[in-house]
Amino acid sequence: METFTQHLRRIQEAKSSALCVGLDPDLRRIPSHLLHDRTPAEAVVVFCRAIVEATEPYACAFKVNVAFFEVLGAAGAEALATVLRYVPRAVLTVADAKRGDIGNSARFYAEAVYEGLGCDAVTVAPYMGRDSVTPFLEAAGRCAFVLARTSNPGAADFQERLVDGVPLYLHVARAASSWGDESEGEVGLVVGATAPEALDELRTACPDAPFLIPGVGAQGGDPAAVMDAAATRRGRVLVNASRSILYASAGRDFAAAAGEEAAALRDALRHPTLLGEA
Amino acid sequence: METFTQHLRRIQEAKSSALCVGLDPDLRRIPSHLLHDRTPAEAVVVFCRAIVEATEPYACAFKVNVAFFEVLGAAGAEALATVLRYVPRAVLTVADAKRGDIGNSARFYAEAVYEGLGCDAVTVAPYMGRDSVTPFLEAAGRCAFVLARTSNPGAADFQERLVDGVPLYLHVARAASSWGDESEGEVGLVVGATAPEALDELRTACPDAPFLIPGVGAQGGDPAAVMDAAATRRGRVLVNASRSILYASAGRDFAAAAGEEAAALRDALRHPTLLGEA
Repeated sequence: METFTQHLRRIQEAKSSALCVGLDPDLRRIPSHLLHDRTPAEAVVVFCRAIVEATEPYACAFKVNVAFFEVLGAAGAEALATVLRYVPRAVLTVADAKRGDIGNSARFYAEAVYEGLGCDAVTVAPYMGRDSVTPFLEAAGRCAFVLARTSNPGAADFQERLVDGVPLYLHVARAASSWGDESEGEVGLVVGATAPEALDELRTACPDAPFLIPGVGAQGGDPAAVMDAAATRRGRVLVNASRSILYASAGRDFAAAAGEEAAALRDALRHPTLLGEA
Repeated sequence: METFTQHLRRIQEAKSSALCVGLDPDLRRIPSHLLHDRTPAEAVVVFCRAIVEATEPYACAFKVNVAFFEVLGAAGAEALATVLRYVPRAVLTVADAKRGDIGNSARFYAEAVYEGLGCDAVTVAPYMGRDSVTPFLEAAGRCAFVLARTSNPGAADFQERLVDGVPLYLHVARAASSWGDESEGEVGLVVGATAPEALDELRTACPDAPFLIPGVGAQGGDPAAVMDAAATRRGRVLVNASRSILYASAGRDFAAAAGEEAAALRDALRHPTLLGEA
């Protein structure tokens, strides 16, 4: 069976794209005409489906942000499953859930995202250590993206604190990568585009791990610099943008505007590792 | 408006109980007769409702473990909301969700648990720092229990690493407590009963924070030692047990057996801070 990295590489080379489109459907920001005569969950489905169709040609993956669905209760859980069914098989899916709990509970979270939702990958929080992460590594062909150095201001609070002279995020990345060595599934890392020195350092420490990189687009990271720092033939990179694509227009042309924004970002991410040559 | 701690203290003194009953409904372990002619989600509701009714006299709170519901998809989300509606108002509810994401997403997770589910408290993962935690602190009367030193084996991987000569969990606890100083809601800490020295140390560092303490029962922590180490008049303690109560019997007497187990643990947790005197 193909590993997650092999699968990602195949898609990236076929589409010359490192772009991951993040689905963060915010009812206060989706075009207002979509809300007429629909429940919130129905509007979210219609919105996400249109975004998926318009941006799929330029994307190698879609990342669903579970928070934006969970806030809608059971109807949101149903909407999330429905949206994922509209994503073509030709792209990968990442559940941005940032789950992490003791082994007994983590197994259920893993089953929920891999079997219940059918996602190829999931984001996982590392604070509780090995037995909270390894249940996400037991499925062949899947990937658990462990939070290493995130893109938000609070990343400095604990992730950058020094442990034995080295930032905590580097300890987390090394430990998580080693847990993957014995697993069917793969370990990836979440590394923010807003921390270029961490990108360099983590790629050196973990040459084979796929990186999920938020922080371009609305958060300001530079697409070309990110690819230069982190993309290699072995170590694949998924660069996520959500708000800058989803809300490119608040009008009836929102899907077309999202498609244009996705195409432009796909182009800005062009890199030799995506060419499928050599 | 009453704070979470004031509310908890009132309930604890009225019921002489520090017991939190954890609802972790595992389909492989709930009595098999409950599964006949029911969907999995229906069986979970029937099981949890019976447990709530049998154990409520001895409990000051119920903690729902979201993983066990999430694995059932949209039907599980509906079951979770239904179970919470069966919990009497005379006890508190904690959503054990271990959520943590950038501010924009964390706000939706907070809305989902406080407004959507109506829970009084939630567990929160600290790795992403301040802006991932503070959205859970904006609701008066509620409490975000931040993971400090958890009860699982993986707790040693990162939480006990030394930063400036002090374990990471202590940095997390101090930082999180300081974020609560400016908030409407309250900061609590998750501290495992399996780490008695951390309990001591954290109570000294954070004298006012409520502690949610897993790790007695199936995980082996000693109830009386936990109360002696962590319970004070100001710093309240919620001691959680899940499996040892839920699965006290696999037969038709499961609810009665759970009630007996809960009563025994409530008694084992008796402590002067629960008496409502002085």
